[in-house]
Amino acid sequence: MSYWATRGLRGSAFEEVLNMTNEQYRKEGLALIQKIPTPIKPIEIDQEKRTIKLAYFEQKSTVDYIGVMGGIPICFDAKECGKKSLPFSNIHPHQVEFMQDFDLQGGLAFLLVHFTEYQEYYLLPVETLAEYYLHKEEKGRSSIPYSAFNKELMIPDTGGAYLNYLAVALKYGKMKKALAK
Amino acid sequence: MSYWATRGLRGSAFEEVLNMTNEQYRKEGLALIQKIPTPIKPIEIDQEKRTIKLAYFEQKSTVDYIGVMGGIPICFDAKECGKKSLPFSNIHPHQVEFMQDFDLQGGLAFLLVHFTEYQEYYLLPVETLAEYYLHKEEKGRSSIPYSAFNKELMIPDTGGAYLNYLAVALKYGKMKKALAK
Repeated sequence: MSYWATRGLRGSAFEEVLNMTNEQYRKEGLALIQKIPTPIKPIEIDQEKRTIKLAYFEQKSTVDYIGVMGGIPICFDAKECGKKSLPFSNIHPHQVEFMQDFDLQGGLAFLLVHFTEYQEYYLLPVETLAEYYLHKEEKGRSSIPYSAFNKELMIPDTGGAYLNYLAVALKYGKMKKALAK
Repeated sequence: MSYWATRGLRGSAFEEVLNMTNEQYRKEGLALIQKIPTPIKPIEIDQEKRTIKLAYFEQKSTVDYIGVMGGIPICFDAKECGKKSLPFSNIHPHQVEFMQDFDLQGGLAFLLVHFTEYQEYYLLPVETLAEYYLHKEEKGRSSIPYSAFNKELMIPDTGGAYLNYLAVALKYGKMKKALAK
């Protein structure tokens, strides 16, 4: 039921901001980021009215956004979180796998997390996500603590209609490169 | 109507082959390519049965596939074609724009075209697509002729369940780099 409950008919306000930001990035030629539609399987079509009469949500979605900025492939998921830690309940194993595979292929994979209580935004690298998510049993955790979020990867909230995450994504890319050396 | 008519409930056999190929690429760690679901807007949900009672196909889809192979962002669309030229009727302006923008961001964008009559497969670079598509009125053409397809970008049909397009995509990437120098 939790899967179902998290699916609304509309995206969240956070997603709206990201969609507008991505449109702006595209206009300015900074990046091209595609929102991946929720996979829906149409079963019955009303040919006369040209509508779908019956359809199912498909379980296996991967990430919310995928694209490219200046030659760098990126993919990310947007998560909103009212607590002092990011709960795993809203993160699916195949999403983490997808991000890890994307990372292995030389792309940048991360979460953009909105802590509504602090009104703060962070980029959470797939490495940190995987570290917590894949060892949740050993660690006895059901969430990623706020303290695991790197302040250097905080996205400044300028309060407008956009969330300018691109500079922080580039910074993350540079940090990865420096570590690889 | 043409948009509607081209939307089936199931993907084409060509798409099935590409989906299986992409799965195989992922298993082998060669590439991670995401099939973009057809954008469908759910309007009414049956909470009891957990199904969608009413939904619409959204017009603005972009490309069929997007992903990354060894650090290179790629996106492509699959087209099947029974004639001796690829008709424009099945190609939408925003698809061409998306591919051009993707190319500008340093990614590889192309069509994978199946000429069913010849049982031949080609990679058609976005440059060639745009050249014909954007000048269709001047050229008085409603399709891209078979002769415009570069034999060097033909994908060998090994007759199996897969279409191994990756080597040709890499070749295309190298051709682009050589031209840019």
